[in-house]
Amino acid sequence: MKKILVLGAGRSSSVLISYLLDHAQEWNTTVTVGDHSIDHAALKVQDHHRGLAIKFDATDELQRKQTILQNDIVVSMLPPLLHFAVAKDCIEFKKHLVTASYVTPEMHRLNEDVKKAGLLFMYEMGLDPGIDHMSAMKVIHSIQHQGGRITSFKSGTGGLVAPESDDNPWHYKVTWNPRNVVLAGQGTAQYMEKGVKKFVPYHRLFTATEKFKINGLGKFEAYPNRDSLQYIPLYGLQNADTILRSTLRKEGYCEAWNALVQLGMTDDTYTIENASSLSYSQWLASYLPARNLPEGDKKKHRSKSVKDRTAKFFERGNKNDMIMRLEWLGLFSEEKISLDHGTPAQILQNLIEQKWMMQSGDNDMIVMRHEFGYDSEVVKETGTGEQKTEHLQKTSTLVLMGDDSVNTAMAKTVGLPMAMMVKLLLKHELFLTGIHIPVMSQVYEPVLKELEERGIAFKEELLPAGNK
Amino acid sequence: MKKILVLGAGRSSSVLISYLLDHAQEWNTTVTVGDHSIDHAALKVQDHHRGLAIKFDATDELQRKQTILQNDIVVSMLPPLLHFAVAKDCIEFKKHLVTASYVTPEMHRLNEDVKKAGLLFMYEMGLDPGIDHMSAMKVIHSIQHQGGRITSFKSGTGGLVAPESDDNPWHYKVTWNPRNVVLAGQGTAQYMEKGVKKFVPYHRLFTATEKFKINGLGKFEAYPNRDSLQYIPLYGLQNADTILRSTLRKEGYCEAWNALVQLGMTDDTYTIENASSLSYSQWLASYLPARNLPEGDKKKHRSKSVKDRTAKFFERGNKNDMIMRLEWLGLFSEEKISLDHGTPAQILQNLIEQKWMMQSGDNDMIVMRHEFGYDSEVVKETGTGEQKTEHLQKTSTLVLMGDDSVNTAMAKTVGLPMAMMVKLLLKHELFLTGIHIPVMSQVYEPVLKELEERGIAFKEELLPAGNK
Repeated sequence: MKKILVLGAGRSSSVLISYLLDHAQEWNTTVTVGDHSIDHAALKVQDHHRGLAIKFDATDELQRKQTILQNDIVVSMLPPLLHFAVAKDCIEFKKHLVTASYVTPEMHRLNEDVKKAGLLFMYEMGLDPGIDHMSAMKVIHSIQHQGGRITSFKSGTGGLVAPESDDNPWHYKVTWNPRNVVLAGQGTAQYMEKGVKKFVPYHRLFTATEKFKINGLGKFEAYPNRDSLQYIPLYGLQNADTILRSTLRKEGYCEAWNALVQLGMTDDTYTIENASSLSYSQWLASYLPARNLPEGDKKKHRSKSVKDRTAKFFERGNKNDMIMRLEWLGLFSEEKISLDHGTPAQILQNLIEQKWMMQSGDNDMIVMRHEFGYDSEVVKETGTGEQKTEHLQKTSTLVLMGDDSVNTAMAKTVGLPMAMMVKLLLKHELFLTGIHIPVMSQVYEPVLKELEERGIAFKEELLPAGNK
Repeated sequence: MKKILVLGAGRSSSVLISYLLDHAQEWNTTVTVGDHSIDHAALKVQDHHRGLAIKFDATDELQRKQTILQNDIVVSMLPPLLHFAVAKDCIEFKKHLVTASYVTPEMHRLNEDVKKAGLLFMYEMGLDPGIDHMSAMKVIHSIQHQGGRITSFKSGTGGLVAPESDDNPWHYKVTWNPRNVVLAGQGTAQYMEKGVKKFVPYHRLFTATEKFKINGLGKFEAYPNRDSLQYIPLYGLQNADTILRSTLRKEGYCEAWNALVQLGMTDDTYTIENASSLSYSQWLASYLPARNLPEGDKKKHRSKSVKDRTAKFFERGNKNDMIMRLEWLGLFSEEKISLDHGTPAQILQNLIEQKWMMQSGDNDMIVMRHEFGYDSEVVKETGTGEQKTEHLQKTSTLVLMGDDSVNTAMAKTVGLPMAMMVKLLLKHELFLTGIHIPVMSQVYEPVLKELEERGIAFKEELLPAGNK
């Protein structure tokens, strides 16, 4: 009997835990779920006879080590910061590890130790990163097996709200960690375009968007996501001249979010004391420049409403969509800030948690879209058998709606790949050691197949070809 | 015989050390100069019979503690990060401390320990911070003693190049720490304007400038410097509705530096590997967006020179002053980057160290300018003895040129206040304990007087009055 340990019982873990419990009999496993709230863990385990809910504090070294020692495979949903200690323990006690977290440089330095211990640590095994790697690699390998040469790869993912639950002008609700929503993109995004490395600083990130349509779902926009360059060797795309991973939003979101970035309201580096003595409108006014105006204009400027001044700052009319989105969020309101003190990012998070809350009956939606450009040799129609190079474009798109507030599209797409990876570790001989992400066919083939059986399926489309 | 210890023998310490050595006989003191380079220390001490040069490594705990223990007054020119350990040792061994560094929140938490030990730690005792506090407080107290009510205080300081050595279109050379020049302003600036707290994020900082003229020196511009709000209680200006500290540059600098900020070239958070394989022009091109253009325009775009594309990005002509300044810096050149790898900020620092180097014979210049707005009751001219409130404005300005490459204006204005503070500690009974900055008359009166005797003098000017 193998023992599986799941660390973290938050919103995104329900489908993962259900899957593991549903198969526990068949696989002859037990499933222990540890969370800092034993109630959260218990809610997920319910009274399953092969399940066990425990209170787990990752910072309690003794408990952490004992718990990991007693299990065989660890699935970690912990935040990145708590993650490292768990990984070290897994090496010490020789346990495999599966997680949806990014491989950080710090983590990557453990690679040799993981190999030496004969273990497999599968990272980036959720949705994004996770399903994106697997579904992209499937198409990339298939194009390459047919002799095609990938020249361009663009990929975007968005955790959004389902159309029937989309009732606000941002077309967005919080379906995952709200802090990550507020801090999204801080730093410098990096990607490759036509052979040139591109760096996009945060203050230009939300203007560096590309737009596309999905039939029946309307217009989307994509902004660059972190460092795409590191995936060039991981995907084996050293010959492609364009690589871009991005985050998807419905059209209009990025422009309005960029307004918050431009104002400075997503900053997480300083604290505003006595924030609750300010209205949202007064807070916003702190970011509006009143300087550089002649004295007369300054007076006029200050007598105008914050909404009008904001519209003027962005050179928009006050009925412009962007201004209306800021207004809908309550940023021009006289209501007091509901936090005593906090960084701008914390105040904004608190606000969007109220405004963008999923309501009872609301469903979420995952959209993932890959775009591949590739050159392919085809026989000319002249009948001479001569060949020519054609440039082709293919898209591969996933659209998935949540079933309900527990079986959300996010929980399914984050949890199922990890659960299926556990299955691979249980059923097959170990085919790999070290720290990996799921780019190899031994992983993506069975996982994508099973995801498809559960309705998580990509649709491929070949775009009209153009000679190169 | 009292023993004075100076930690750090960099460029800005020469005048400080000379002053201390020149007075060592009179004060019956010795002066020990410690630096990680004993050669630097020896160069400053020369063969003075009361001086001693030592190799000093602030991270070597044993040596640090022993050295501090053996002395009576510590003057620290160390970088802020190394500073904290020295301060703790000064408490442990009961030594007074004088430094030009900012009081960080971490440092401020030692205040009670400093008081309990009966010590005085005088911080922000250089130029900016330092002379700015002293010269401002002298005017503020004098206005208040005459019954005036300060409504507005603005103050700016710049370490610049002397007009006769100003031979580049930026009107700037590196006269102090070049890393600080590149990272200047990162974070969010805070100040108070007309009763409203203002937050200026980095990406808007260099556009939030105010301009002014100094007769004979031309036009200057001021951009907000860090957190001005914390000086409201320290200056006793709780009733003023405008407080702004800023950094001064010659006109045109901020607009061109802002171009580098907008591009993303001052980022210090990621490393560019194989930087030396890129030309400066290729590097700049990595920050130019090529996206969002129709395919036809993209091709045209890429066939244009990086200079033309940059001009287009900023919506300028390619002979615009800003573009010419970027060109002068070598950013459109085909020359290879001279660093193997580095963050954008490090690459830029390396470049400006070459381009903005002080040449033999060059002199520097310090400009400091305060602007005070205040209300004053005056007797009306009606002869009835009735009073009216007049709103007055006063400026106080320092312009100081360096004498030569050792006795720079920077070295004098940073070093002399610290040296004079040592004198106060030696000659007078201790009038204060705890962590302080020089806002009290017991400090600023003797120091400003002696600075004036050495030619470091402010000129006050009362601007035309307007009734309020």
